[in-house]
Amino acid sequence: MPNSRAASTSVDVPRGLAGVVVTDTALGDVRGQEGFYHYRQYSAVELARTRGFEDVWHLMVHGALPDAAQRSAFAARTAELRRLPDAVRAALPAVAAASGRSGPLSGLRTALSLLGASLGFQPVYDVDADRRREDTIAATAAVPTLLTALYRLGRGLEPVEPREDLPHAANYLYMLTGSEPDTARARAIEQYLISTIDHGFNASTFTARVIASTGADVAAALVGAVGALSGPLHGGAPSRALDTLDAIGTPDRIDSWIRERVLAGDRIMGFGHPVYRTRDPRSRMLCDIAKQFGGPLVDFAVEVEHRVEVILAELKPGRELHTNVEFYAGVVMELCGLPREMFTPTFATARVVGWSANILEQAEDPKIIRPVARYVGPVPPVAVPAVA
Amino acid sequence: MPNSRAASTSVDVPRGLAGVVVTDTALGDVRGQEGFYHYRQYSAVELARTRGFEDVWHLMVHGALPDAAQRSAFAARTAELRRLPDAVRAALPAVAAASGRSGPLSGLRTALSLLGASLGFQPVYDVDADRRREDTIAATAAVPTLLTALYRLGRGLEPVEPREDLPHAANYLYMLTGSEPDTARARAIEQYLISTIDHGFNASTFTARVIASTGADVAAALVGAVGALSGPLHGGAPSRALDTLDAIGTPDRIDSWIRERVLAGDRIMGFGHPVYRTRDPRSRMLCDIAKQFGGPLVDFAVEVEHRVEVILAELKPGRELHTNVEFYAGVVMELCGLPREMFTPTFATARVVGWSANILEQAEDPKIIRPVARYVGPVPPVAVPAVA
Repeated sequence: MPNSRAASTSVDVPRGLAGVVVTDTALGDVRGQEGFYHYRQYSAVELARTRGFEDVWHLMVHGALPDAAQRSAFAARTAELRRLPDAVRAALPAVAAASGRSGPLSGLRTALSLLGASLGFQPVYDVDADRRREDTIAATAAVPTLLTALYRLGRGLEPVEPREDLPHAANYLYMLTGSEPDTARARAIEQYLISTIDHGFNASTFTARVIASTGADVAAALVGAVGALSGPLHGGAPSRALDTLDAIGTPDRIDSWIRERVLAGDRIMGFGHPVYRTRDPRSRMLCDIAKQFGGPLVDFAVEVEHRVEVILAELKPGRELHTNVEFYAGVVMELCGLPREMFTPTFATARVVGWSANILEQAEDPKIIRPVARYVGPVPPVAVPAVA
Repeated sequence: MPNSRAASTSVDVPRGLAGVVVTDTALGDVRGQEGFYHYRQYSAVELARTRGFEDVWHLMVHGALPDAAQRSAFAARTAELRRLPDAVRAALPAVAAASGRSGPLSGLRTALSLLGASLGFQPVYDVDADRRREDTIAATAAVPTLLTALYRLGRGLEPVEPREDLPHAANYLYMLTGSEPDTARARAIEQYLISTIDHGFNASTFTARVIASTGADVAAALVGAVGALSGPLHGGAPSRALDTLDAIGTPDRIDSWIRERVLAGDRIMGFGHPVYRTRDPRSRMLCDIAKQFGGPLVDFAVEVEHRVEVILAELKPGRELHTNVEFYAGVVMELCGLPREMFTPTFATARVVGWSANILEQAEDPKIIRPVARYVGPVPPVAVPAVA
């Protein structure tokens, strides 16, 4: 029988759908007042402190942390899927060449689209839950390979083939640089990745759900999410916080630089968050990680953080302004040797797990997400004028 | 200064955001009760009957129908932009090879992403309105070139270079087949394309707006929209209606086939629409076009349409069920020699103009579209268990 839709009354809601509940979710949430966020029933920070990336990936897409047998099966499977289909690998040099003028996120957008097509992803409602999950896992496993290959090709370097004996995060660093990272750096990036897998609802996650809600395939949804993530209003550009540190330059300039910005009403990158009223829990964790490395950059960052809080307490008493995830994420990635242009793509490497879990949850509830628009132009029909 | 967001109360709305007004628009609307839809202040069907594709494209992205000078400038500019950047052209064989197992929409998804990267599209909020519009025009102009090149490469054929002396629609058919279409076919496809440029709000249009609302570039938004369009719930698969005609087979089988479907409660593809309570105005126009060609397929289609209405009036009195756009669109595209797998991509060739106009409108109102989700899982934090 045909589609049917009850004649519906239109519903007015806040601009940008702010506060509008679009779905129920069992994937996680953010409690801004207490500075807490979680993946399923677990503290995300506790997961990052105690688990490996693959464990949390398994939690998000399978619904539970793995037991020992599941862990080793999942590790083996995902390691295998790091290797690209030959046709995709063969296409990447041309993709890198054609993407030359744009950033690595648009390269990822293209490459993920190509990967999904090459793997023959089918509409999410046309396949069963296991198949959908497998598609998300195949895409997620390949993201570091795609990103690092495009990065290296863009610099005239040969891509580094993935190694199956390294964990996901360590293998990412290995493919980027061509050498195996030390344990501390591999673990630091792994914890960063775990901490950014998901973070309540956000525009890229919503995009992935809208696309999946039409029944489109997993690649279509992920590619849309990558596109949304590339938008400056989405946030998530940890390189900006480092740019702030560079702009300040030296410890003796901290106070004057900050006072000038605060008095001018400028935003200080790396500070402030739309939801957290306390310090961002990701920032706390990444600060601890940075301090394990130590060194002048870390000392400088800690001092800047301290002075911003002191100066704000003086100039804008009562205003809660703390470092957000970008601030120490930038520091940690710099310490781990990641080039700045790869900071946001590295974020995407983790967030693709969150998108995946959201796509899978959305596909369990086959209903298209389709609001309406209100026509406010001149009243039609106006007769079409004769061709001039 | 940092982001700030007033603590907001969450707002409950119908599932799938049905009826939720997400934006004002001056681009058009659908009046389901009267079987009327419009682009800006003009009847879309009247535009299709009286204007060329480029005129309506101009209307959508520039806000007004062109005068004579604007028409010739727009035609010259868009014809020039049909030619792909060398790097994109060079990448297409590899894209086609890697996309082999998937449909042409996923090839378009990849190719548009690549084109945007190659042209260096910038975040929509970082450039002015003219630059944004130019980006949409460059993408739209290239869609037929990308689609036909991928189609031909997939069959071992050389892509056909665009001709600048043909209108947009005729050049599309030319690049697909390698020979210049006759006037009747070129005009039939042009009218089909005009009639599907936009149609109220829909899931792919919404996707484009969500992505653009983050400030992402035009390609990111269009690629997301292509992804949403590929979802089976989005609708817009004119080949399905032809499949219905094939399934019925011969005129003597019409009644028994339809009765069986109606009594089984099955959907009859090509019939029914979620908004129109009358016959779809696009269907009326496309039926007229099909009748100008005439022939056994058209006679058969007309007979099927007639018998469905008669049988439904008997079996389900009071139910309004009419042909939708798919029904005669499929017939017209078949008559014009388009292969069935290119029916939905042909739809995308037109709809990209609607997406473009929506992206441009969205970018005039820089506010991220970001609803919320309600966490309904087990109450956290549950202590993370020790590693098994």
